[in-house]
Formats: sequence, structure tokens, C-alpha cells
Amino acid sequence: MANLYDVAYDLENTLRSSDEFQGLKQAYEAVMSDESSKRMFEDFRNTQMELQQKQMQGEDITDEEVEKARKTVELVQQDNKISSLMEKEQHLNNVINDISQIITKPLEELYGQDDQ
Amino acid sequence: MANLYDVAYDLENTLRSSDEFQGLKQAYEAVMSDESSKRMFEDFRNTQMELQQKQMQGEDITDEEVEKARKTVELVQQDNKISSLMEKEQHLNNVINDISQIITKPLEELYGQDDQ
Ligand SMILES: [Ca+2]
Ligand SMILES: [Ca+2]
Repeated sequence: MANLYDVAYDLENTLRSSDEFQGLKQAYEAVMSDESSKRMFEDFRNTQMELQQKQMQGEDITDEEVEKARKTVELVQQDNKISSLMEKEQHLNNVINDISQIITKPLEELYGQDDQ
Repeated sequence: MANLYDVAYDLENTLRSSDEFQGLKQAYEAVMSDESSKRMFEDFRNTQMELQQKQMQGEDITDEEVEKARKTVELVQQDNKISSLMEKEQHLNNVINDISQIITKPLEELYGQDDQ
């Protein structure tokens, strides 16, 4: 029987060469090679991370911060390169969630069996 | 190129027939077919879940609850069938964490590349 880790590396390689990942990579490089898209995208990422951290630490988020976040979202949505990147990110995230549900199905079946 | 989902199903099947999963399944069935081990294990699981839920909802945990949890842990540790199950669970969890790090490596490399 194939080794579990060998099959995991197969899956990594398949993911790396998939249209989904290659498309994401190109979209990411398109953003990073455009000075204004790059700055906008990094602003957006930083703002999101700051807000997430504050939420996790239970800190209050001010009206100015909400407004700033709203503006960075509005800006990135108007940038074609960034919108394309975010679409491809979302799609690959869905694929990875699917994969992880497939892989953990044996465990779910095992622990769920006495409820059926 | 192989389809991403096909390789994910390969990995599921490899996991399902692995020594790690088959060993866990046997250990689980051994606990479930022993009336006293089964009751003890379910008590332990329920107690853990109740405490986790309270923690997540920010509720206080009473001294009685801490003491009850300590006792259920002590009991399951003395039961060979349950200790064996928990060891195998821990091991398979480690394997699944490894696998998920392997699979998400392409994404980490992509987003980390401008920091290197
Ligand atoms: Ca169950
Ligand atoms: Ca980076």
C-alpha cells in the first residue's frame, strides 16, 4: 500500500501544478509587479490584519478604523488586478476546504457511527 | 495531469487503509464494546465538551466542575483500552496536521516570497 506521506506529496505537487494554483500565482504576480496595485493590496491586507488582531484581543474598533477599512475595501474592489487575485484566492480556498473534508471523512465516519 | 479531487480521494483511501487509521478503528471498537470503558469514555468526552463550550462562551468554570473533569481524566488514564485509543488519536492527529502542512506549502511559499 502507498505510504500516506507519499500520497500527501503527490497531492501537494498536483495542487502546485493545477490551473487553480497557477492562475492564483499569475494573479498574485500581476498585483506585485504593479506599483499602485501592490501598495493598495498591502494596505488592505495590513488593515484587515490589524482589525482581526483587535477583535481577537477583544479591543474596541473605532469609527475611524471602520471607515478606513471600508475605504481600503472600496479601493481594492475597483482594481481589476486585485479583484482577480481575490476571486482566485476564494476559489482555491474552497478547493482546499473540499480536500480537507474529503481527507477527514474516515475519522468523521468512525466517530459518528454510533449515532446512525 | 491528475485531477486534484482524484488525488484527494486517493489520499482518503490511503488514510482509510493505513495502519494508523485501522489501529485507531480497532482501539475505538475495543472501547465501544466494553460497557464500562464505553461509559467512562463518553463521560470524559461530554465533560470535555461542556468545559470547552463554557470557555468559548466566556462562562466561569466552578471548582466542582474542575474537580469533576480531573476525576474523569484520572479514570480514563487508568483504563488501558481508553489510553490506547487516546494515544492512537493523538498520533493520527499529528499525521493529519503534517499532511495539511504539506498540502498548503505552495500557498505559504507564494505569500511568503516577498519577505525572503
Ligand atoms: Ca457518536
Ligand atoms: Ca509577504
